[in-house]
Amino acid sequence: MSKTIELAQHLEKLHINNMYKSDFYWTWDKTDEELDAIFTVADALRDLRERNKSTRIFDSGLGISIFRDNSTRTRFSFASACNLLGLTVQDLDEKKSQIAHGETVRETANMVSFMADVIGIRDDMFIGEGHKYQKTFMDAVKEGYRDGILEQQPTLVNLQCDVDHPTQCMADMLHIIHQFGGVENLKGKKIAMTWAYSPSYGKPLSVPQGVIGLMTRFGMDVVLAHPEGYDVMPEVEEIAKKNAAATGGSYRKVATMEEAFQDADIVYPKSWAPFAAMEERTKLYQAGDKNGIDALEKKLLAQNAQHKDWTCSEEMMKRTRNGSALYLHCLPADITGLSCPEGEVDNSVFDRYLVPLYKEASYKPYIIAAMIMMSKVKDPVSALMALDAADKRKMF
Amino acid sequence: MSKTIELAQHLEKLHINNMYKSDFYWTWDKTDEELDAIFTVADALRDLRERNKSTRIFDSGLGISIFRDNSTRTRFSFASACNLLGLTVQDLDEKKSQIAHGETVRETANMVSFMADVIGIRDDMFIGEGHKYQKTFMDAVKEGYRDGILEQQPTLVNLQCDVDHPTQCMADMLHIIHQFGGVENLKGKKIAMTWAYSPSYGKPLSVPQGVIGLMTRFGMDVVLAHPEGYDVMPEVEEIAKKNAAATGGSYRKVATMEEAFQDADIVYPKSWAPFAAMEERTKLYQAGDKNGIDALEKKLLAQNAQHKDWTCSEEMMKRTRNGSALYLHCLPADITGLSCPEGEVDNSVFDRYLVPLYKEASYKPYIIAAMIMMSKVKDPVSALMALDAADKRKMF
Amino acid sequence: MSKTIELAQHLEKLHINNMYKSDFYWTWDKTDEELDAIFTVADALRDLRERNKSTRIFDSGLGISIFRDNSTRTRFSFASACNLLGLTVQDLDEKKSQIAHGETVRETANMVSFMADVIGIRDDMFIGEGHKYQKTFMDAVKEGYRDGILEQQPTLVNLQCDVDHPTQCMADMLHIIHQFGGVENLKGKKIAMTWAYSPSYGKPLSVPQGVIGLMTRFGMDVVLAHPEGYDVMPEVEEIAKKNAAATGGSYRKVATMEEAFQDADIVYPKSWAPFAAMEERTKLYQAGDKNGIDALEKKLLAQNAQHKDWTCSEEMMKRTRNGSALYLHCLPADITGLSCPEGEVDNSVFDRYLVPLYKEASYKPYIIAAMIMMSKVKDPVSALMALDAADKRKMF
Repeated sequence: MSKTIELAQHLEKLHINNMYKSDFYWTWDKTDEELDAIFTVADALRDLRERNKSTRIFDSGLGISIFRDNSTRTRFSFASACNLLGLTVQDLDEKKSQIAHGETVRETANMVSFMADVIGIRDDMFIGEGHKYQKTFMDAVKEGYRDGILEQQPTLVNLQCDVDHPTQCMADMLHIIHQFGGVENLKGKKIAMTWAYSPSYGKPLSVPQGVIGLMTRFGMDVVLAHPEGYDVMPEVEEIAKKNAAATGGSYRKVATMEEAFQDADIVYPKSWAPFAAMEERTKLYQAGDKNGIDALEKKLLAQNAQHKDWTCSEEMMKRTRNGSALYLHCLPADITGLSCPEGEVDNSVFDRYLVPLYKEASYKPYIIAAMIMMSKVKDPVSALMALDAADKRKMF
Repeated sequence: MSKTIELAQHLEKLHINNMYKSDFYWTWDKTDEELDAIFTVADALRDLRERNKSTRIFDSGLGISIFRDNSTRTRFSFASACNLLGLTVQDLDEKKSQIAHGETVRETANMVSFMADVIGIRDDMFIGEGHKYQKTFMDAVKEGYRDGILEQQPTLVNLQCDVDHPTQCMADMLHIIHQFGGVENLKGKKIAMTWAYSPSYGKPLSVPQGVIGLMTRFGMDVVLAHPEGYDVMPEVEEIAKKNAAATGGSYRKVATMEEAFQDADIVYPKSWAPFAAMEERTKLYQAGDKNGIDALEKKLLAQNAQHKDWTCSEEMMKRTRNGSALYLHCLPADITGLSCPEGEVDNSVFDRYLVPLYKEASYKPYIIAAMIMMSKVKDPVSALMALDAADKRKMF
Repeated sequence: MSKTIELAQHLEKLHINNMYKSDFYWTWDKTDEELDAIFTVADALRDLRERNKSTRIFDSGLGISIFRDNSTRTRFSFASACNLLGLTVQDLDEKKSQIAHGETVRETANMVSFMADVIGIRDDMFIGEGHKYQKTFMDAVKEGYRDGILEQQPTLVNLQCDVDHPTQCMADMLHIIHQFGGVENLKGKKIAMTWAYSPSYGKPLSVPQGVIGLMTRFGMDVVLAHPEGYDVMPEVEEIAKKNAAATGGSYRKVATMEEAFQDADIVYPKSWAPFAAMEERTKLYQAGDKNGIDALEKKLLAQNAQHKDWTCSEEMMKRTRNGSALYLHCLPADITGLSCPEGEVDNSVFDRYLVPLYKEASYKPYIIAAMIMMSKVKDPVSALMALDAADKRKMF
C-alpha cells in the first residue's frame, strides 16, 4: 500500500465537512482535525510528486495572486501549488504602499475573479488593514457569486496578513512533526519563539503571532520572548493561552532570549516590529505623512539597535537541549557576517541548519496546495486514491 | 436538453463560414449572423462554466497579449478567456508611450508568434495609430505563416484600438440583450450614448464609437450627445447611420445630455476626449514635443471643466423612462463624491446599479473566448456539443 | 511514413544515453551525436506542430526562467518551448546589475525550484560571472534533490552565459543545415564570423564564441575576424581549433572583414565588446564603481567608433560567393539608416534577407524544446512515435 493510500485512509477518519468551499484566514478558525487534514493532504501530494504521479485536479482554472508587498518565496510557493493542481496563476499587481478602500476593493475583486478558483492574498504591511482587505475582497466575491456575476465561487488562501501567516506556520509545523517523528512525540517539547535583532525595519508580526497561535495546539510548552515594547497582538496571546489549556501544554512569556532558549527543543529567533509602532505607521500612511513615516523609521531602527544582544549566537544555542535545538526561520534571515554585520543569527549556526531550513521551506507549496484542495474538492479521500491509481505526470 | 445544446442548435443555423481563421478588428466588419454567433457561443461557454464543465479546446498553445496602455480589467478578461479554452497567456511588455514603426513591428510580430494561437492587442491611446499597429502586426504574422516562419497562423482579438472597442461593446450588448429578455425586445428602445464630465484627461473614443457602430444594428433608437468640440470620428457616424437605416432603427445627435436622457431606456454616460485634440496629441507624441503635450493637457482639462453639468446625477436619471433606465459603464467610472469631487455619475446612482454593472463586465471574458473559439475552431457546433457531453472541469 | 517517424528512427541510431537528466551548458560538452539528437528532435517537434499535433509531454510542471538582462526574444522562445511541452513558465525577476553571491544563489535556487522541471538562465552581462552563476545555481538544486528538499531534479537550459549561447547557435546551425540541404553538404563551406560596428556598448561575446565553438564541428572553414583588441576568450578558440582538426575543416583568424567575407558561403557580422574590457567592467560592477563604469563606457564607444568601416554593406556582400552568401544575425541588428545612422548592416542587405533571418530565429523555440525533451524524457524515440500517433492539439 502506498503512503498516499495510507494518508487517504487517515483523512477518511477526520471530520472535515466544513472545509469544502471554505476560506483559510487563520489557523485558529479551523478545528484540530481540519489542520490534521491539511497536513495529511500535504504529505500525500508530496508522496505523489516524489513518485512523479500527476496531482492535477483541475483541467483549467485560475489562481489569482495579490501581493501587496514584494515576495519571491511566497510567490513561487503559490505558483508551485497552483501548478501542482492544474491551475494557472494570474497576478494582480497592486501598488504597494496604497491602502485600498472598500468600494474599490469590491469592484476589483469582481473584475479579476470571473474565472478564479482560488485567491491568494498577501497583505502584511499595515496593522489593522491586512485582514480587513482580505475579508472585504472575499465578501465581495461571495456577493458576486450570489448575484450571478461569478459562475463559480473562489476561495481564499491567506498568504500572510497582519494577524496570521498560516501557510508559513503550517509549513513550519509539518517540518517539526516530521523532524520529531510524529505529532505524538511533541507533548512537553519546549519551543522558543523569540525576537532577534535585525538592522532592517518594520518586519511583520504575523510570524510570531501565527507561531504562538498554532504551536500551542500540540501539547508543547510554547515560550514567547521579546524586549520591552515589542509586544504582539493581545488577542492572539489570548488564543495561545486557550489552546495551551486545551491541549495540556503551556504558553508563557519570558523577559530574555537566554531564558527562552534554556533547554528548548526548538528555537525560532526572528525580528519583528512593535505592534504599537506598526499601528502608528498605518495611520501615518493613511494620512500620507511622509515626514512622520521617516521619523518613525529612524526611531524604530534606534530602538532595535538597543537590543543587538538578542541574537542566535553559538553561545545562545549552547543553552538549548543538548546544544542542538531545531533552529527554525521563515527565510530570508539576517545573518551576522554574511548578509549584515550584526543580525538575527550567527553565520555558523545558520550554515549548520541549512538543509533542515530549506526542508522547512519546502513544505509551503504542499501546504498551500492542500489548503486549495480541501476547499475545492468535495471528496478529497477519493481524489487522493484516484491520483494514486492514475498515470505519471510525465506522459512519456 | 441543456442550454448549451439549444445554443449549439441555434448556431448551426447561422452563416458563419467566414469566421474560421479570421481576425476581429471592428464589429462592422462582421455580418449580423456572425455577431449573433459570438453572442451564442459566449452564452454557451457561460452555461458550461456554470455547470463546471470543461471548455478546454486546446491541449496547449499561447495567447499573446500586448497592452500599449495600463490595463487590469482587459488583461484579466483576456487571461480568463484564454484559460477557459486551454491557452496560456504570454504578455509582451511594450513601452507605453512609444509609437512603433513598421519594420520593428514586423520583426517583433514574428519573434513573439512562433507558438501563438491568438494575439490580443490593446492600443487605444493614439488616434490614427492604434488600428494601424494592429493591422501591421497581423499582416506581418500572415506573411510569416505564408513564408514558413510560423507553422500555424494566429488570429487577432482587438482588445481596444483608436476606432472600436469590440470586446467591451459586445459585452455591453449581450448584457442589454439579457436585461431586456432577448434581442427581439430591443426594437424602438432608446439608448443614449452621452459624454460626461471627468476630471481626467485623454480618455479614448473607442467606447462611444464602438457603441454607436454596434448598437444601431438592433433596431434601437441610438442617440449620441456631447458638448461642442467632442465629436467622434465621422467615418463611424456614417456606419451608425447606415446600420440604423438597415434595421429600422435610428441614429441621431442631440446637443444636450438632458435631451439624450429624455425617456431613454438605456443610458451610457462616459467621458472621452475630442477627436481633433487626440489627433493633435498623436502628432505631438510623434514629434516628442513634451511641452506641447503638457500644454494640450492643460487646455483639454480646462475645456472639460466647462461642462461639469454633463453628469449622470439623480436629477438627470429622473428624465429617463420611469426614471429607471438601464445605466451602463465600461468601468472604472469617475464617481462624484467617491473617487473624485465631481465626475461622470452620482455615487447614489452608481451604487444602485452596482450588480448590473458588474454583470455587464462579466460578459467580457466570455465574449473574448467566443471570438477566439469562432476563429480557431472549424466546427464550433460539434465542439459545443462535445463539451456539453464531456467531463467536469474539476476532475474530482 | 511521417517525417516525425523518420526522424525518430534516425534518433534511435544515436548514442544519447548521457542526455537524460543532464544539463545543457555549452555545446562542446556534448558529443556530435548528442547535438544531432537535439537537431533531430527539434525538426520532429516542428513537423508535429505543422500538423497541429499535440507535443505535450508534461501533464503539469514548471519551467523557471531567470533573465539577468532584458530579453524579449529569448523570453518568448523559452515560453514557447515550455508551452509546447506542457510546462508553465514562472519567471524569477532578478535585479539586473546585481552580481549574486554564493549563499544567496544557493538559497534562491532551492526556494524557486520546489516544482521545477527545467531552469532556463540567461546571464551574459559579466565576463567571469555568467557561467559561474549557472553552475552555482544548478549545483545547489542538485544538492537540494540529494538532501530531499526537492522531490524531482530540474535540469538546465543555458539561455546565454558569458561563454556560450547554445540555443542561439544551435538554431543558427539548424537553419544553415536546412538552407544547404543537409549537414552532408557543409564540408568545405566557408563561414565568416566577423565583428561589425554598432553604436551601442557592451554586447556579449557569447554569440561569436558559441559560433566558432559549434560551427567548427561540421567540416566547415570557419573564419573569425575582428579589429585589434576585440579578441574572444582564448579557451574557446582552443576548442574551435580542436574541433576543426577533428572534422577536417579549419579554423583561422584574419585581420579584416574584407578577407573574411571573400568567397564566404555564410556571413555572421555582429558587434561585440572586447573581452579584456568586459573583464574590467565586471570588476567595476563588483566594486560598485559607478564613475569607473561610465568612463569605461565612453572609452569603449570611442574605440568602437574607430571601426565604422566594419559593416556589412552591399559592397562587402559582393565579395562573398556569387555575392549571395547566407547572411545570419541573432537579432535585433543595428541597421544603417533604419535603427541607427551607421550600424552593423546596410538596410538593403538586411531587408533582402528578412525571410531567412526570421526563419533562423524560428528554430530557437524548437531547439530549446528539444533540449528540454532530451534531458527529461528517458525514451525520446518512443515519445516521438507516441506523439505522432496521438491526437491533434486542438481538440475540436
